[in-house]
Amino acid sequence: MYEGAVQDLIDELGQLPGVGPKSAQRIAFHLLDAPSEDVLRLAEVLRTVKEKARFCSVCFNVSQEDRCRVCRDPRRDDTVICVVEESKDVIAVERTREFRGLYHVLGGAISPIDGRGPSDLHIRELLTRLADGTVSEIILATDPNTEGEATATYLSRLLKDMGLRISRLASGLPVGGDLEYADEVTLGRAFAGRRYLDSPANLTAPA
Amino acid sequence: MYEGAVQDLIDELGQLPGVGPKSAQRIAFHLLDAPSEDVLRLAEVLRTVKEKARFCSVCFNVSQEDRCRVCRDPRRDDTVICVVEESKDVIAVERTREFRGLYHVLGGAISPIDGRGPSDLHIRELLTRLADGTVSEIILATDPNTEGEATATYLSRLLKDMGLRISRLASGLPVGGDLEYADEVTLGRAFAGRRYLDSPANLTAPA
Repeated sequence: MYEGAVQDLIDELGQLPGVGPKSAQRIAFHLLDAPSEDVLRLAEVLRTVKEKARFCSVCFNVSQEDRCRVCRDPRRDDTVICVVEESKDVIAVERTREFRGLYHVLGGAISPIDGRGPSDLHIRELLTRLADGTVSEIILATDPNTEGEATATYLSRLLKDMGLRISRLASGLPVGGDLEYADEVTLGRAFAGRRYLDSPANLTAPA
Repeated sequence: MYEGAVQDLIDELGQLPGVGPKSAQRIAFHLLDAPSEDVLRLAEVLRTVKEKARFCSVCFNVSQEDRCRVCRDPRRDDTVICVVEESKDVIAVERTREFRGLYHVLGGAISPIDGRGPSDLHIRELLTRLADGTVSEIILATDPNTEGEATATYLSRLLKDMGLRISRLASGLPVGGDLEYADEVTLGRAFAGRRYLDSPANLTAPA
């Protein structure tokens, strides 16, 4: 509908996830009105990111160097690996400040519908990392959905005879949530995983 | 939280209208996974748009040349001007295929809260266009909100002694809408502007 470059921009923006035709138009006009240097900076960052961003050769987290910030940090506990699906999940876990070990980014989850099997994930590289015996604990932090659960189950079976402590993140009611609005599966998990208040904080109820 | 270029990209994307931190992260990871040529094309379009896109010297619509596509088209009726706030509104009116005249893009609406008065809009240029007497009709198509109405009122007073036919777009129930969900102002307007079914289609009820 628009002439030349403006329409090209709207078309390109419309291809981004979560950006519909109306938002694309809105962003395009925002950029038209914005100072040239702001728009050129965005263009430059887009170029730079494709040049510089890569994946960590150890854990497959996004990185600017061969090894990511976490893998380079000598203060991290290299006996624990938290297995996640995506780099985004690394940031989410880092934000909790609960975990001081290393990560392993699988690059997705097992999903037969999308044609993604174990061989499409960085599972072989995880086994290689475990080979030298440094790691003694694995935390399976895949998403609490069908694909994430399937991946966690697959990995726990794969790793079960390697003498590692293997755990899965707790499922239950989200903090600040409302019991009456919890879905039945989550509420069921919250029951199954309930903690007895007179026992030490880390002990959970028997399954 | 992320390293270097990835975080820069998320920050830049987060500045776009309607893109929050979560969407910015989602778009950034989409771009990281996307083929290089797609991302470079977006970067290129961003550069091009700031170089090439300009505003029509006659009507202030976005354009790639000195005069926009509508102003260049000899088949358009140059006796009618539809006055709109933004270039986006030109596209919206064009989509109806109801209008074959020319446009005048004000570049906004009168809004004392935002410190925007009549002198900040392209009103002087509109008067210049009217000077040679070619234009005989003006359609005020500013938004049906406070600022748009104020602008339409201002313009209708400014132009009223120039011997032009001046009209304002009809307000009323949106087609496909539900009467019970219409707000009271819209429904009130729909009553005030009701059409008698046995009178010619264009006649509206007396106010």
